[in-house]
Amino acid sequence: MTGEGHIIQTYFAPLAAGFPGALGLRDDAAAIMPPSGYDVVVTVDAVAAGVHFFADDDAADVGWKALAVNVSDLIAKGAAPHAYVMSVAFPALPDADWLGAFARGLGEAQAAFGLSLIGGDTDRRPGPLSVTITAFGLVPSGRMVRRATARAGDHIFVSGTLGDSALGLALRAGSASYAVSAVHRAALIGRYLRPAPPLAIVPALRDFASASMDISDGLIKDLTRMCDASGVGARVDLTALPLSDSARAVVASQADALGIVATGGDDYQVLACVPPDAVAGFKAGAQAAGIMVSEIGEIVASAEVVVTGENGEPMDLVATGYDHF
Amino acid sequence: MTGEGHIIQTYFAPLAAGFPGALGLRDDAAAIMPPSGYDVVVTVDAVAAGVHFFADDDAADVGWKALAVNVSDLIAKGAAPHAYVMSVAFPALPDADWLGAFARGLGEAQAAFGLSLIGGDTDRRPGPLSVTITAFGLVPSGRMVRRATARAGDHIFVSGTLGDSALGLALRAGSASYAVSAVHRAALIGRYLRPAPPLAIVPALRDFASASMDISDGLIKDLTRMCDASGVGARVDLTALPLSDSARAVVASQADALGIVATGGDDYQVLACVPPDAVAGFKAGAQAAGIMVSEIGEIVASAEVVVTGENGEPMDLVATGYDHF
Repeated sequence: MTGEGHIIQTYFAPLAAGFPGALGLRDDAAAIMPPSGYDVVVTVDAVAAGVHFFADDDAADVGWKALAVNVSDLIAKGAAPHAYVMSVAFPALPDADWLGAFARGLGEAQAAFGLSLIGGDTDRRPGPLSVTITAFGLVPSGRMVRRATARAGDHIFVSGTLGDSALGLALRAGSASYAVSAVHRAALIGRYLRPAPPLAIVPALRDFASASMDISDGLIKDLTRMCDASGVGARVDLTALPLSDSARAVVASQADALGIVATGGDDYQVLACVPPDAVAGFKAGAQAAGIMVSEIGEIVASAEVVVTGENGEPMDLVATGYDHF
Repeated sequence: MTGEGHIIQTYFAPLAAGFPGALGLRDDAAAIMPPSGYDVVVTVDAVAAGVHFFADDDAADVGWKALAVNVSDLIAKGAAPHAYVMSVAFPALPDADWLGAFARGLGEAQAAFGLSLIGGDTDRRPGPLSVTITAFGLVPSGRMVRRATARAGDHIFVSGTLGDSALGLALRAGSASYAVSAVHRAALIGRYLRPAPPLAIVPALRDFASASMDISDGLIKDLTRMCDASGVGARVDLTALPLSDSARAVVASQADALGIVATGGDDYQVLACVPPDAVAGFKAGAQAAGIMVSEIGEIVASAEVVVTGENGEPMDLVATGYDHF
C-alpha cells in the first residue's frame, strides 16, 4: 500500500466503519442514501494551523475542532449531523503519534455529534497544515432553518454562553493576562480548543425558530449578517449576554472584556430568532433538551443593529468580528 | 459588505444562481433535495498551485481543472453531476482579474458537466493557492458503480485517449522537449490544463460495467488499486492503449514515452471493467453517447497486474504513478 493509502486505511478508515456508503474509504466516492422526504444540508469549513488553531495544539483538539466547527453550521440549520468528508493538506509527512491523536479527536467528535467520516483526500504541500471538512446533515424536506428569514418583532436567543472561546484564545495566545484563577483559565482555553455546539437544540430550532445561524465570527458581526440577509435590524442588550462563571470572572476584573464577548468569535453557539407566539415553545423545547438559551434582544424593522449597555444607552461597540480579507 | 462577503457575492454567487437550495450563497449551508429513489454520491479533491497546477496557469484553467477532477470521480461512479461546494485558500488578496477568470473557468466547467456551485468558504493563509471541491452526483439508489467489484474474465476498457495530459505536463514543465509540431504541443498542454472527463458515458457505465474508477494517478497504478480492492489481477496490452494523434507523434519520436502514457496520470478518463456478456451493450452504449472506448486487457484471477508489449512478453514497466507521500 502506498503512503497515502496507508494513512487512510490505518488512521481514517476506522472512522468510517459504521457507514455502509463509505465503502471503507476504499472507493473513489461515497454514497449518502437520504431517507425519503429528507433534504441533505451541506456546509464546508476549513481550519488551518496559525489561523484557526495553533500548530502545537494537541492533534486530538485539532481533529475535534475541525469537525465541530462544521457540525455547528448543521445544528444551526436544524439538521441532524449525518456524515462528512475531509481533505487534509500536510506540509510534511505527519508522524504516527500526530495522526493517531488527530483521528482520536475526530472520533470523539463523531461520537458526540453522531456522524461518520465517509471519504477524503490527503495531500502533501507547502503551507500550514489544513483540514477542510464538508459536512452533511439531514432535515425533513424544506425544513432547513434559514438565515434570511428573521422578522421584526422576533425575539433573539443565543444558546450556551458567549465569549469563553475568544477569551480562551487571548489567554492561549498570550495576548491577554486576565486576573483569573487557573481553573477559569483552563476552562476558557478548553472552550477555545474544543467548541461544543448544542446538538440537542435541533428539534426546538426546527419547530420554533424563524431564522438561525451559528455564531462563529462574533455575535455582533453574525447578527448583523443575519439582519442584512433578512432586511431587518436588531436591538441587543449587552447586559443580557450569557456568561460562564469563568467569563464573568474575567469581566469582573476587566470590564472592557465584555466587548470581546460580543465580538470575539469562535463561540459555535446558535443565534436564533423566534416569533413572539413561539417563544414559550422554544424555551420549553430547549429546556427539555438540556440546552440553556438566553434572550438577548429583539429584531426591529429599521436596518440597524443597536447594542445597549447597563444604562440602556446605545453603545459605541465596534461591530467587528473575524474576516479573512 | 466585508471582503470575504464581497468576493463571494461578486464572483461566486452568479455560479449558484440556478440552484434554489444554494440560497444565493447567502446562508450558512445549502440544501440538496435528492429526488426520491436516488443516492447522493460524494467525492472530494483538492488542487494546489505548484502541485496540481502551475501558479501562473490561466485562472480560468485552474477553475476548470479544480471542478473537472471532481466531476471525473462522479462520472466514473455512474453518477450524474449535480452540485458542488468549494473551499479556496488564498495566500494573498486575489486581484479582480484573477477572480473573474477563475469564476469564468468554473462556469465553463459547470456548463459542460451540468452542475452548480451551492456553497463555499474562502480563507487567506500562507502556502500555495488551493481549491478544495466536494462534488455531488445523483444515482438511482444502490446503483453507484464501485471500484471493488471487478471479476476475473471482465474485459477492461478505458475511455478517450491516454497520456495526453502527462505528456502535456512534461512539455508545460519544460522537463521534456518532444520533437512534435506546435499543434501537437498545444493539444497536449491543453489536455493537461483542461481535462475533459467523459460525461456522456454515465448511462453505459451504470448499465453494463461491473466496476469502474477514474484514471487520475496513472493507468497502471489506478488499475492496480482496482485489482487490489477487488482481489483480482489484470493483463494489459500496452499496444492497445488509445493514443491521440498528438501522443502518437510523441511516441513515434521517442518510444519510451509509452511508459509515460501508461503511468503518467492526470488522464481523468474512465477505467471500466465489463463482464463478457455485457461487452456488446457497453460498446454500443458508449458509441451511441459519442464516447470512444477501447479494450485494453482483461481481469484475471491471479492477484497481479501484468503489462505486455509488442511481442506479447511481460514488460518491466514500473507500476508507478502519482502518490503524495
